Amino acid sequence: MTPRPPVRGGGRPPEPRKGAPKNPRPHSSSSRGTEVPLRKAPEGLGGEQVEGRQAVLELLHARRRNVRKIYMADALESAAILDQIEEEARRQRVPVQLVSRARLDRDARTEGHQGVYAEADRLKPVELDDFLVHERGFLFVADGVTDPRNLGAMLRSADGAGVTGVVLPRHRSARISPTVTKTAAGAVEYLNYAQVGGIPAALDRLNKAGVLTVGLAGESKKSIYDLDLGSTPVALVVGGEENGMAQLTRKRCAEVVSIPQLGKITSLNAGVAASVAMFEVARQRNLRR
Amino acid sequence: MTPRPPVRGGGRPPEPRKGAPKNPRPHSSSSRGTEVPLRKAPEGLGGEQVEGRQAVLELLHARRRNVRKIYMADALESAAILDQIEEEARRQRVPVQLVSRARLDRDARTEGHQGVYAEADRLKPVELDDFLVHERGFLFVADGVTDPRNLGAMLRSADGAGVTGVVLPRHRSARISPTVTKTAAGAVEYLNYAQVGGIPAALDRLNKAGVLTVGLAGESKKSIYDLDLGSTPVALVVGGEENGMAQLTRKRCAEVVSIPQLGKITSLNAGVAASVAMFEVARQRNLRR
Repeated sequence: MTPRPPVRGGGRPPEPRKGAPKNPRPHSSSSRGTEVPLRKAPEGLGGEQVEGRQAVLELLHARRRNVRKIYMADALESAAILDQIEEEARRQRVPVQLVSRARLDRDARTEGHQGVYAEADRLKPVELDDFLVHERGFLFVADGVTDPRNLGAMLRSADGAGVTGVVLPRHRSARISPTVTKTAAGAVEYLNYAQVGGIPAALDRLNKAGVLTVGLAGESKKSIYDLDLGSTPVALVVGGEENGMAQLTRKRCAEVVSIPQLGKITSLNAGVAASVAMFEVARQRNLRR
Repeated sequence: MTPRPPVRGGGRPPEPRKGAPKNPRPHSSSSRGTEVPLRKAPEGLGGEQVEGRQAVLELLHARRRNVRKIYMADALESAAILDQIEEEARRQRVPVQLVSRARLDRDARTEGHQGVYAEADRLKPVELDDFLVHERGFLFVADGVTDPRNLGAMLRSADGAGVTGVVLPRHRSARISPTVTKTAAGAVEYLNYAQVGGIPAALDRLNKAGVLTVGLAGESKKSIYDLDLGSTPVALVVGGEENGMAQLTRKRCAEVVSIPQLGKITSLNAGVAASVAMFEVARQRNLRR
């Protein structure tokens, strides 16, 4: 156990942040940077607190949003990835504050923080129509996935499978919470998100735009392997852990398919099912056999 | 919140259990059934404590091992699956004891017990050679998977993908712990297991027997989609979360392949990667496109 030396980190100058309100409320003028009033708190995508080593490192690498501060436990065993985080933070002038393990345990919001978390600007959604520019777009639509570990697992796989856009509903969905950031191991930084008022209306829009909307439902008799997912834009739609897709969502899908199950247990974990389906899209698009 | 009525359950007669030692040690004569001395504690497969609703129901449905007792929280909201557990337990004369939530929280070993756990005889392994009888056997070999949630997720997918045998090392592996049973949602009951002293020697044996041994390694340049996994027996080999397959294990695999990654994050969650690979085997064997 090699204790790590005490802090450094650039102590970034208190310049006005991009996107900060013109007339900050009095209590938001603190130097700590976390008290910028949230504009639309309940509708936001989230992502303000990023926990876990890989997630924090990718947050820095991606350079897609402002990182305010990194908190690191003061007595961590040496690890290459911690050095990488510190080096990258120094380069980008993001302050790194060493804190006691006890304080980190208290302030982190997951048990899997691995001694590191970061505060950053929240993720910024784009418009659904922005996703329609890809000729072979691959959208991933999560309809009411409320378990943050499932959502995180899905996002990690979405990055790996080449998803070009993630569609989330404003309500009845996990936000990009610390648990999501941790489980996704950095993938949240590289994905693009649209937040929509309702999934059925979004699917209407996608259907009209020529996107093949494919819902995943364990009880469907039609196999995902019988679909051609390689030659058109595709939106893969998955439902929540408990009840699957909402009735209206299901009706709007051009196809509803399942992953054939050969065993005694007929349902897969929601994150695994979504991942298997995403990689089937990837396989058909990029790969041979 | 409808409180459930107090106990019932058959109060199974105290007949000698199958496999109970001829001369029980004095302290094992308690009626509780959990104090049967363990025969080979450190080498055992595990499975003695099964937690979570689906897992307990499948334990009963599978009827593959003796279920000693079921513990259920005494103030659970009504749910069809709880009724099914009680009915099946009554039919099989397995006692169901209602206990306080506090006691259940204390005695259960996962946070996901959902108010129910069962005590059962441990899972019994078979011999590796027993797996060689299948003409198109599909073995899943876990080399040093120590995270019980990953192992549980893999086993759940193994059942769904039609795995005919699971190979686990006696050491450096998660046992079938309560977390594994919970995460696998009942799948542990339907799989067959071999426990081996060393994975490399087991792979030697499988290679000689004509089984195509395929290791999964993220850094391999060869794609799993370029392999023919449909026409011979296959053993899919995965490594631990941190370091992947051991060097010697890797050397013994006839093929080492990866699932091609299209995003910025180059590694999948271990359970997800194993699941995607297992369903690729299933797809090639059973399915069309």
